[in-house]
Amino acid sequence: MSTPVTRTQVPDGVRDRLPSEAAAMRRLSARLDNVFRAWGYREVSTPVIEYLEAVAAGAANWGRREDLYQFFDRKGRTLALRPDMTTPIARLMATRLADEPLPLRLSYFAPVFRHRELRAGATSEIWQAGVELVGAPGEAADAEVISLACAAVRAADLTGFRIGLGHVGVVEGLFESAGVDPQAAAVLKEAMVARDLVAFEQGVARAGLSGERAERLLALVHFHGSYAEAVARFGGVGGRVAEALQHLGRVLEVLEALGVAEQVNLDLGLVRSLGYYTGVVFEGYLPGIGAPVLGGGRYDNLVAEFGRPLAATGFALEVDRLLMAQEQQGALAAEPGLDAVIACPPGQEAAAMAWAARLRAQGLAVEVDLLGRTGEELAAYARARGAARVLRPGVPSIH
Amino acid sequence: MSTPVTRTQVPDGVRDRLPSEAAAMRRLSARLDNVFRAWGYREVSTPVIEYLEAVAAGAANWGRREDLYQFFDRKGRTLALRPDMTTPIARLMATRLADEPLPLRLSYFAPVFRHRELRAGATSEIWQAGVELVGAPGEAADAEVISLACAAVRAADLTGFRIGLGHVGVVEGLFESAGVDPQAAAVLKEAMVARDLVAFEQGVARAGLSGERAERLLALVHFHGSYAEAVARFGGVGGRVAEALQHLGRVLEVLEALGVAEQVNLDLGLVRSLGYYTGVVFEGYLPGIGAPVLGGGRYDNLVAEFGRPLAATGFALEVDRLLMAQEQQGALAAEPGLDAVIACPPGQEAAAMAWAARLRAQGLAVEVDLLGRTGEELAAYARARGAARVLRPGVPSIH
Repeated sequence: MSTPVTRTQVPDGVRDRLPSEAAAMRRLSARLDNVFRAWGYREVSTPVIEYLEAVAAGAANWGRREDLYQFFDRKGRTLALRPDMTTPIARLMATRLADEPLPLRLSYFAPVFRHRELRAGATSEIWQAGVELVGAPGEAADAEVISLACAAVRAADLTGFRIGLGHVGVVEGLFESAGVDPQAAAVLKEAMVARDLVAFEQGVARAGLSGERAERLLALVHFHGSYAEAVARFGGVGGRVAEALQHLGRVLEVLEALGVAEQVNLDLGLVRSLGYYTGVVFEGYLPGIGAPVLGGGRYDNLVAEFGRPLAATGFALEVDRLLMAQEQQGALAAEPGLDAVIACPPGQEAAAMAWAARLRAQGLAVEVDLLGRTGEELAAYARARGAARVLRPGVPSIH
Repeated sequence: MSTPVTRTQVPDGVRDRLPSEAAAMRRLSARLDNVFRAWGYREVSTPVIEYLEAVAAGAANWGRREDLYQFFDRKGRTLALRPDMTTPIARLMATRLADEPLPLRLSYFAPVFRHRELRAGATSEIWQAGVELVGAPGEAADAEVISLACAAVRAADLTGFRIGLGHVGVVEGLFESAGVDPQAAAVLKEAMVARDLVAFEQGVARAGLSGERAERLLALVHFHGSYAEAVARFGGVGGRVAEALQHLGRVLEVLEALGVAEQVNLDLGLVRSLGYYTGVVFEGYLPGIGAPVLGGGRYDNLVAEFGRPLAATGFALEVDRLLMAQEQQGALAAEPGLDAVIACPPGQEAAAMAWAARLRAQGLAVEVDLLGRTGEELAAYARARGAARVLRPGVPSIH
């Protein structure tokens, strides 16, 4: 059953960007591209439309297939709008970029599409800016992308950025050591993704866990503390947990040396909704923004889904949340202004437009009034457009 | 029946952009935005996904509904990927921009989507850069957007740009005066869109036209000549044709004064595939590019489809054809280079990354080698990345 719409509406979860918003976005994009380039990251772009098969390589473990916009091509093959950029870039790395020297540092600034339920603030067209560092398995690579995220947020003139850092191996290692079966683990992870502590505790109880094993899982999602405290609390579990903690320790060491460790907190209960992460995972936050502005982590098995086993790590910044933060912090780029409006009496169009051309050649932004306005009417238009002055034929030019 | 695909393929008509291509595109986008801003045009953006109802306001006369990618939202409403930018911007002008002072000058750089049959060169994700000038009904407005198109192509460092200029009123006026019925007119226009002279002649014959009426229609599609020749040949038809020719004459006068008339030829048989044009129409060409790089014209009835009667004129540049022309003319922007690769012996990551941070603060683009390479192996990587030098700890820095 279809709810009627009028042609002036836009669909749920998508929106127009007015001139001031588009200008702020273009400036943010340029700033981020500059930072990414300074770190050796090269921009790529991939199609909005992919085969479902390609998209599913990343979305398989995601459990959100119903979030995909799907349709068909003329040969009956299923197409989908990409729900993330990491999967298409993994495809690219395994195919057209297969002969490039490693590691590959790539970046993007592009929309992804997730069909969301209509609720306050839910967006279906999600602009992301991100990087992928491929073919570098060590913890220095993780530290590089985390410190690059800090540099990118700084380049956006934003302050108060904090990163929560976790590791898939800590969570899964603890689940294994506690004997949590895969089905219960999936329930617990979903609660962790949603940061739903009540659901998590119910899941622990329902899994029949008790005593020290249950306590350790609850301690995981409630953990706040230093690296030393994390080792003291969970290091004794050994195996995969201890390995993951060592990896985290080495990442933190590099971040310390780079002076960004103070922005990073351990968040051992962090689980990301995308299922392809295999190592460190992280999220970033800005004051006054109620959802993460950054998400990322290591995904060492995804590129192999496209036929080329390659270690990889990266992040995506949420462009609209960065813009919202810029607005809140007074850091939003202003729209470039107009320098002058040239008055144009009827019949004088050619002369007025030639004058405008000369001023533009000098680097000025100039409009010719095409409605033949004069006096206060034209002055009011110029003011509304933020133009510094009105130029009139016969009146001395500003140059 | 579905043809099997592998997950490493991309759908028909869409493609990835490798780093050099993405860099050229970003640079072109920045150049065009600069020109558009200098002329007072402000960028907007609209969602990739629209309601079919909104898209159809522009696509109604288009006859290419089957080119729309369509799917459904959760409430059963039909969504579509936008097949053009002019229609969404018309929607915007009638809604969220309804209170802005007129005229409105808007620009965009964005992909549109048309589900094309698989044939050589057919693209389904089509990047366009364009402008809309809304609320200015006169011929000076048409002249402004045509000369802006010339300026935009010049800013892309391209030479040899030519524009073919026609007018809907000439074509429709001649059809009317020749007594061509609407059905025959549709057939003839389709042949004109395809520049299919054989189909056009067959259509004229099949419409039962003969003598002077048929001759004049054939003269229209074969016309090459000056404005004076056009007036001599078709001015006598009077009515709508004479009006349209007068309008074209005034546009050409302004273009003459602006020094761009020599780039513009009359092309009286020009008919554009989008049905919403009401006045001048034009296409632009570059040497060596077999399809128009520019299309535009006046569309005085489209904004009214969204509830606000407003005269409008504008154009769209075909981004990929401009990039192809840049490549052919040696004008393609090079990817910004890398200044240095810093060698990084195992365990020295923090020091190497801190060194990189200092160099970046000086404006250099610097990578840290994360694979612990030395000697010729590292030098070869740096060469492949186009880096001017390799920096090694303990060896004097370049700064």
